[in-house]
Amino acid sequence: MRMIDIIEKKRDGLRLTKAEVQYAINGYVKGEIPDYQMSALLMAIYFQGMETEEVTYLTEAMLYSGDVMDLSHIPGVKVDKHSTGGVGDKTTLILGPLAASLGVKVAKLSGRGLGHTGGTLDKLESIDGCRIDLTEKEFVDQVNRINIAVAGQTGEIVPADKMLYALRDVTGSVPSIPLIASSIMSKKLAAGADVICLDIKIGDGAFMKTIDDARRLSEVMVSIGNGFNKKVTAFLTGMEQPLGRAIGNRLEVKEAIETLSGNGPEDLTTLCVEIAAMMLKHAGIVKTLSDGKRMARENLHNGKALGKFTEFIQAQGGQIADLATFVQANEQIPFLAKKSGIVQKIKAYNIGLVSMKLGGGRETKEDIIDPMVGIVLNRKIGDRVACGETLATIYANRPVSADIIASLEEAFVITEDTPRIQPIIFEVIGA
Amino acid sequence: MRMIDIIEKKRDGLRLTKAEVQYAINGYVKGEIPDYQMSALLMAIYFQGMETEEVTYLTEAMLYSGDVMDLSHIPGVKVDKHSTGGVGDKTTLILGPLAASLGVKVAKLSGRGLGHTGGTLDKLESIDGCRIDLTEKEFVDQVNRINIAVAGQTGEIVPADKMLYALRDVTGSVPSIPLIASSIMSKKLAAGADVICLDIKIGDGAFMKTIDDARRLSEVMVSIGNGFNKKVTAFLTGMEQPLGRAIGNRLEVKEAIETLSGNGPEDLTTLCVEIAAMMLKHAGIVKTLSDGKRMARENLHNGKALGKFTEFIQAQGGQIADLATFVQANEQIPFLAKKSGIVQKIKAYNIGLVSMKLGGGRETKEDIIDPMVGIVLNRKIGDRVACGETLATIYANRPVSADIIASLEEAFVITEDTPRIQPIIFEVIGA
Repeated sequence: MRMIDIIEKKRDGLRLTKAEVQYAINGYVKGEIPDYQMSALLMAIYFQGMETEEVTYLTEAMLYSGDVMDLSHIPGVKVDKHSTGGVGDKTTLILGPLAASLGVKVAKLSGRGLGHTGGTLDKLESIDGCRIDLTEKEFVDQVNRINIAVAGQTGEIVPADKMLYALRDVTGSVPSIPLIASSIMSKKLAAGADVICLDIKIGDGAFMKTIDDARRLSEVMVSIGNGFNKKVTAFLTGMEQPLGRAIGNRLEVKEAIETLSGNGPEDLTTLCVEIAAMMLKHAGIVKTLSDGKRMARENLHNGKALGKFTEFIQAQGGQIADLATFVQANEQIPFLAKKSGIVQKIKAYNIGLVSMKLGGGRETKEDIIDPMVGIVLNRKIGDRVACGETLATIYANRPVSADIIASLEEAFVITEDTPRIQPIIFEVIGA
Repeated sequence: MRMIDIIEKKRDGLRLTKAEVQYAINGYVKGEIPDYQMSALLMAIYFQGMETEEVTYLTEAMLYSGDVMDLSHIPGVKVDKHSTGGVGDKTTLILGPLAASLGVKVAKLSGRGLGHTGGTLDKLESIDGCRIDLTEKEFVDQVNRINIAVAGQTGEIVPADKMLYALRDVTGSVPSIPLIASSIMSKKLAAGADVICLDIKIGDGAFMKTIDDARRLSEVMVSIGNGFNKKVTAFLTGMEQPLGRAIGNRLEVKEAIETLSGNGPEDLTTLCVEIAAMMLKHAGIVKTLSDGKRMARENLHNGKALGKFTEFIQAQGGQIADLATFVQANEQIPFLAKKSGIVQKIKAYNIGLVSMKLGGGRETKEDIIDPMVGIVLNRKIGDRVACGETLATIYANRPVSADIIASLEEAFVITEDTPRIQPIIFEVIGA
């Protein structure tokens, strides 16, 4: 077998065999196939796509390029959740404890944030003492003991994805549905859960710009998962504005706690309740989604979800002494509306970048995060604002530069139109 | 400027600017842009194509990556000719002396053969003493003295093309019209002539499989040439069977001499006469193509073209003592027809491979050529053959393997149909 023949076959729109896909991936991971051939194959895949069978072969080859988590010592149905990355997305911090409080086994490997998006691990690490580097044994024991553990990936999980992603990033093949699908699914499959809930963000601040793309991506991922006997459900959700009101690490932990106490923003609360219900159904704990939703809402109000959160954070070594003093930035600067009207849109990408520039995110992998900084939205889409009223509050530990202000000004679209307010969940695929 | 942005721009079907193309090519030649980014850009160009303007930028950037021949010391119109490579293509050996014998200044840089195609340099080197490594001064002096010189490219002509071609060859972006056009035209422009005649082969044994592709390639090359104030004419010619009857280095030199003596095969003779007429017209020696054709045919019969060939070979140090003993292979094996009928097709690719396998061509760049071996076609398309009659004669210095015989058997298509006999020149573009 020769890599050049595989490249030309895909370039000409033909379907690759399992042996060909394995040859390419295994050879690349071993260093036998050079970067310049792999980048050409990736670009050919970008243009020609892949059939579901081929993406499954690709996912499998990537999956077995490294270690696969063994969750067989956790009895029952194990549930994982993945978001394609949004702005203000603290769903895992709420959904995890919420589902765990209802008996679901939540075993989740998470990632860090880069660029305008945040990552769950960074949010957890913003809590004093909280560890994310659990060993596989600690991870398994914790799920058995309290129904939930969230940890970072070890270095040996899907090394092929790390190599391929680094190459795609500098050769223009990032936005390819088969490549995105195999990247996400190989990692989720390596994490070993039986049920996988995917939160596919759509819009300005997300990887997927259109619902059509998101639907195609979701269908591919659900098919891949089914090929491995996993229950996979994809939630297509809106990212036309940040999720909830808080963006920034401790600010988001605080909002998660408020949501777990029944006082969260509507969009965030709804999203967590809906996904929790699906987890309960897949885990066999409820028969219908409406039962699941009712039980989830109950636990947000009766303190059980919040109690599970505290238990979870403590199990990983963390503690929050006093929520009132949890977020301490030097300055809280109101960002004021320059005109009156109704908020039509809050560009999530801009808000994410602002949080990053304040120090709340990473521009490069080496950047160190300031957990205290960020933005709180005082207005969301559909809210009326008068000129001079506060649209958002900036939490800063360094002087706020002119480009941050410019980025915020661009983020808020205000007119006198009646905005189209969309539900947080557009569509559910693979339920 | 960043290479990733250039890759993404081309991937998305946008037009690259001159500065972007220069950045990519210059950076690649300097080693500042890695192979894996260039291979991704080349694959994006394969899929998205390039506008004529962009191909001209690309050609220019490649052209100035190395030395450009200075032919200003040759007074008058300098003419060059290029073939995209065929089987049995000894056109240069005939056309060059023929045009030179009529006053055209033929200044031609040639290449070597690889795979199933032969190269003019290999044919010249098969003649005892014949040099192809002329210095620029020797080359210019010889054109001034006898109107013709043919030499190999020096290492400094268009290094970008060598690098890009080597990369395309292993990453699947060889068959791309803008990449082929810029590769050919950058070298032809670097060779410094004023008039460029292109022989674009079409068919089984050629780079271009269809007349549509050949037409598109030709139009692009003519446009590029015109952008540099060159007169460029492309001849779209057939390669449904080898050109002439002889394939193999000395066998082809011998057929060239026969053609220069007025005894050549019809297809080869016609092709040389037609291109010579265009050269005469572009050089201002004749007013009409029919005048040019008449004069060319005359010189094939009055000994002047042959005399110029002898002068040309002697000028480059070569000599042919006796044409009767020029080709000396150990064995001449007749290849017999297994059925009666009319020859419909002689697959040029197969014949070229057979010649290569006999030792007449190179499988890899390092192979050493045996000048004596090859094939002579005893039948061409349209000829009737009876079972047991000779279709071709194999000239061999080593045992003829079974796969050579199998390849020959596959090459000849014989049925009782009346074949469609096509003219050797399908179309002329940019006349």
